[in-house]
Amino acid sequence: MNFSSKLLENAVNEFGSLPGIGQKTALRLVLHLLNQDHASVERFGNTLIHLKNNIKFCKNCNHISDLDICDICASAKRDHQLICVVEDSRDVMAIENTNQYNGLYHVLNGLISPMDGVGPGDLTIEHLVSRTQNPAISEIIFALSATMEGDTTIFYLNKKLHKENLKVSTLARGIAFGGEIEYADELTLGRSITTRVPYENSLSK
Amino acid sequence: MNFSSKLLENAVNEFGSLPGIGQKTALRLVLHLLNQDHASVERFGNTLIHLKNNIKFCKNCNHISDLDICDICASAKRDHQLICVVEDSRDVMAIENTNQYNGLYHVLNGLISPMDGVGPGDLTIEHLVSRTQNPAISEIIFALSATMEGDTTIFYLNKKLHKENLKVSTLARGIAFGGEIEYADELTLGRSITTRVPYENSLSK
Repeated sequence: MNFSSKLLENAVNEFGSLPGIGQKTALRLVLHLLNQDHASVERFGNTLIHLKNNIKFCKNCNHISDLDICDICASAKRDHQLICVVEDSRDVMAIENTNQYNGLYHVLNGLISPMDGVGPGDLTIEHLVSRTQNPAISEIIFALSATMEGDTTIFYLNKKLHKENLKVSTLARGIAFGGEIEYADELTLGRSITTRVPYENSLSK
Repeated sequence: MNFSSKLLENAVNEFGSLPGIGQKTALRLVLHLLNQDHASVERFGNTLIHLKNNIKFCKNCNHISDLDICDICASAKRDHQLICVVEDSRDVMAIENTNQYNGLYHVLNGLISPMDGVGPGDLTIEHLVSRTQNPAISEIIFALSATMEGDTTIFYLNKKLHKENLKVSTLARGIAFGGEIEYADELTLGRSITTRVPYENSLSK
């Protein structure tokens, strides 16, 4: 595209480098910012730089945090016997939004994926292993994506974390609430039949 | 959403204020930036601030430019007898990308829209009128959206610019190339029948 302005082109290229943002969308966003006043644009730019320079990752669980220890790990109200293992901080936020979980987390910063060159050493697995050495920990919950990478990672971690009296669980899988049977994929539908549950258990408490 | 970090929340809110970017997308973009190195994020932020502080608008046509006079207006190769009137700089880029137009432009910075409180005084209409006083200008081309606002603006400008020997034209309207008849809207299809053209004229030269 002919931008007629190097400044504009640079800004469009920066936005265009973000995931899911094409050149046309990038141009729309930049022109929107251009229509804002100077103070707003400065705030936009500086907020990003400030975030990158000052953000921390919790020393306990690796979740994004403003402090060395995140609110969740620091809270006395949480159940410090449970660790929920997730891929990234977005998953922590998604689970927190459900208000159904009261334990701690462990952010792996990715999944084992030989295809993408991500091995166990690239993740925070050693850190997780040392956390589970703590006898206070009673259960590890794997909340990883139901993909090949997620399953591989669970398989690896399950062997690695093997310890007496440590309960290991994964998220329940099956038809989503509100999901229509005819649109469910074959694998999910098939598995949900073989792993069917007594009606009483399926009612939410 | 519970962000667990004020810094993160601020950045997500900034991205979420952009058109078409919801909170989930904003979070995805911010986390992507967080994964980049410091230099990249600083460049991202500073590029936007630099753009806003240094961008100019061509003194002749109001198009976005790095200089006082944009490349198009400064070019001796362009036909300085033609002025194509467009809503904003994005339209200039879209028309430039076709490589079918060799004249100058005039960016209105909007369309007359009483519903949104935009009157003729909010646009660069006086500037356009003074440009058309130049006897060298032979034709004005209205390349405005085929909407109520676009038609209103053309109607207003046509009266305002009325002058002897000044040709006034608008974009051709009809079925898009590659468009299927059955999916064309009734108005476009109906008009394209009443304004049908001799077969020879419809062939591109």
